[in-house]
Formats: sequence, structure tokens, C-alpha cells
Amino acid sequence: MPSLAPYKSDLDYGYAPGAFPAMECLLHRPDCARRVLLHSKAEGTEAAQKLTALAEKLHVRVEIADKALSRISGKENCFAAAVFSKFDDALTPGAPHVVLHNPSDQGNVGTILRTALGFGVEDVALIRPCVDVFDPRVVRASMGSLFSLRVKVYDTFEDYQAEHPGRALYPFMLDGSRSLPDVLSGDIPADWTLIFGNEGSGLPASFAHLGQPVRIPSNEKIDSLNLSIAAAIGIYGFTRGSASR
Amino acid sequence: MPSLAPYKSDLDYGYAPGAFPAMECLLHRPDCARRVLLHSKAEGTEAAQKLTALAEKLHVRVEIADKALSRISGKENCFAAAVFSKFDDALTPGAPHVVLHNPSDQGNVGTILRTALGFGVEDVALIRPCVDVFDPRVVRASMGSLFSLRVKVYDTFEDYQAEHPGRALYPFMLDGSRSLPDVLSGDIPADWTLIFGNEGSGLPASFAHLGQPVRIPSNEKIDSLNLSIAAAIGIYGFTRGSASR
Repeated sequence: MPSLAPYKSDLDYGYAPGAFPAMECLLHRPDCARRVLLHSKAEGTEAAQKLTALAEKLHVRVEIADKALSRISGKENCFAAAVFSKFDDALTPGAPHVVLHNPSDQGNVGTILRTALGFGVEDVALIRPCVDVFDPRVVRASMGSLFSLRVKVYDTFEDYQAEHPGRALYPFMLDGSRSLPDVLSGDIPADWTLIFGNEGSGLPASFAHLGQPVRIPSNEKIDSLNLSIAAAIGIYGFTRGSASR
Repeated sequence: MPSLAPYKSDLDYGYAPGAFPAMECLLHRPDCARRVLLHSKAEGTEAAQKLTALAEKLHVRVEIADKALSRISGKENCFAAAVFSKFDDALTPGAPHVVLHNPSDQGNVGTILRTALGFGVEDVALIRPCVDVFDPRVVRASMGSLFSLRVKVYDTFEDYQAEHPGRALYPFMLDGSRSLPDVLSGDIPADWTLIFGNEGSGLPASFAHLGQPVRIPSNEKIDSLNLSIAAAIGIYGFTRGSASR
């Protein structure tokens, strides 16, 4: 393995910056963990000891690498990171899915991964063009949730549909034909897919003809909800038992 | 007014960076608007024309100020901003409130302001220590929602309580004694206050003795939800009619 470069999408490895995301990498993707980097200032801390202990058990090398940490994270105060091999998963047929169509903000995608995992949705698709899901900003915002999920990137939504045909599709749109509470008051098939569009432009109008378009009722005083907020409200609603919807 | 400095908390004015937030400032706090700054590259665009037309109507000066824009926003691609006098509001008694206790992330606070406004909660308190609500990063993340809300900052939660006694308090805590769907299945008084803690440490344990502590049901695979996500789910739940909860 060559010396560590600032992150680029065409590398076959990525960085999980921060002690918590690095630990999540070792715990949930041990086969992908290549190295653990620690800052000399972190030596002896509880977080560093835990990371080191687990890394040794997994035969993953631990290095003191102050300069590499600041170079790869772009921050002076990054005290730990994991270097991991990128991975590629198939999504689970029959399980709930979240599809992010052309998301452009790393923080939003990471936050949505964290929310999805927290509510038990473990299969996430991204449709290109979209942020690089292995970008350290995504990994950081996900708090390492990326390592507990199955994530797959598709060139087009049609490619996703071809691989997962016949599912119950719910595109979230500002002018969706039914409101979220209304949709949730009815029966929801187990193999649902929630679809969210780009931060600025939302979903293309053609998605209004797919499945059941959903609108989150909000007032006219704001333009729209933040993408990660809309996704959270949708995921929360779909994962609550019907009794509590 | 002296030449425009990079933003600091002790200035008596702030910046609303971006055409949309600047427009929100002119529309909803016209009395506070001091100047509109435009980048020379933005001249002639529809957004600049709208801003200019409204500013002229309000007798607010419009300047081409490329250098000031990059200085105050810290970004090269900020094409418009409003300069506004800071304001101070009393919160509405009897209306729903959101209280943010010691929030430390500007993006989270801005996103929560945007979400609150979108769901019709127009009174927000912050408890110190907390981010400066006039920080341009807050204003930007709020998409200018700040200008449509009543926001008040208190030194302590007790100060908030003294000014707004007898309200129905709902502290959101990881170990809250009732789950959100359970709380929402009962009667909710009109004067509810949702309270959310710091990103890292949550609310102090003593808040478990205030009102009805609420837990958002999520699984053990994540440490916690992002603050702006937890707040959004809480606000959405409390503002849906009981029929759709």
C-alpha cells in the first residue's frame, strides 16, 4: 500500500475519520479494515486503547500518523481514522429500501445513512450523479453507519428497478398526490422503497407516475424541508408500527 | 456604518449570505435590513433583479461588493447577501415552543429553525452556552427562516421557565420515560415546549424530572440520532393533527 493520499474517488480505499467511525469500521467491516491511524496526542486515551485492542485482535496495523491524519481529514483535530477497502453490496430483496436520487451534499447523505440505520432500514441505493458514498465527509456524517449498511450505487433509477422489480415505490415530492399521514393510515407492503430527490431540484416530474407519490405536509412559509429532514420524517413514519403512525 | 468586517458575535449587525436568505430578510424583517450586497457576476440575474427591486422599494441601499462578499461569507461563490441589524424578540405565551439547550453546531440550529417554521412552530428559545443564532452559517442553514421566527436566547433554562411558567414541557432524552408515539397517542396541551439537548451530551440528567421526558424509538445500532433529525421528528409529531399521529 503506497503512502496515504488525500481522499479521491478513484482510490480503491477510503478513510473513516474520527474514533467513533473508525471503531464502527473495525466492528462491522473487519474484513475491509486496512490500517488504523492515531494521532500522537491521542495515545493513552480510552478511545485509542479500545481501537488499538480491537485492531490487534483483527491483525490490523496501528500507526501513529499525525501528518497523514491532518492531510486526509483536512482538519487539525482529527485524532483517529481507519483506512478501509471500498466495498460493494447487493441490496436485500423484500426488505425496505431508501433510494437517494442525485444527492449532492455529503453531510446530507451521511446523516440519512445514520437515520436509516437507527430506524432499521439497512439497504440504501444511490442514483448517479451523486456524491461519493465513501467520501470521508459522508463517512463522518454517518458516524460510521456506512459500515453497518448495504449500499449500492446505480447509474440510473431504471437500473435499480431492473434489479428490484415489482416493489412498492413511494417517491417523495413537494406536490405528491397523497400526504404522508394519509399514506401511512393505509396498508404498506413490506417491500417498500422510499425515493428522495436532489437537494435543489427534487425528483424529476416523471417520478409522479411511479408508485404512490408522497407529500410531507408543511406550510408555505418555507421553500422545502432540508433533504435529510424530509428523509428522516419519511423513514420514521414508514418504520413505526401502524398503531403508532 | 463602518466598512464590513468578517462576522463576529459582538457586532450589532449580521449577514444573510445567499440570494434566498437575503430575500427572506427583506421580506420578513424589512425594518432590520441595512444593505444588500451583490457580486458583479450576479448583476442582471433574475435573483439580483428581484432583490434590487424590493430593496429599492424599502429604501435599502444596494452595492456591488465582490470583495466584501467573499470576506464575510468565507466563500468565493457567494453572489448576494443582506446586512441586517440584530433583533431580539419575546416568545409568544400559549404558542408551541422549541427550546435548544446548549446547541453547538451552526448547521443544526439553522436546519432546526427551517424545520420549525415549516411545521408552524414560530417561537424558538436557545439556552447558553450555545451557537450565535446570528452567525451567517446559522442564517444560511435556516434558508432565512430566522427572519420569520421569534427567537430568544436565555442564560439558563430557569430564566426561560421564569418567563414562561406552567407550560407542558417535553424534554427529549435517549432514556425518556415514554416513547414519542405513546406520548402523541394522548392529549397534548396547546402550550407545549419541546426541549432538545447538546449534540454530544444531550440534556442534563436533571431534565428527566421536568414535565414528560420523551424518547424517540430507534435501535441500538446507532449511538443517537443527529440533533436536527431528532428535533424534526419531534416537531413533526407534535404538529400533526391527532388523527394523523
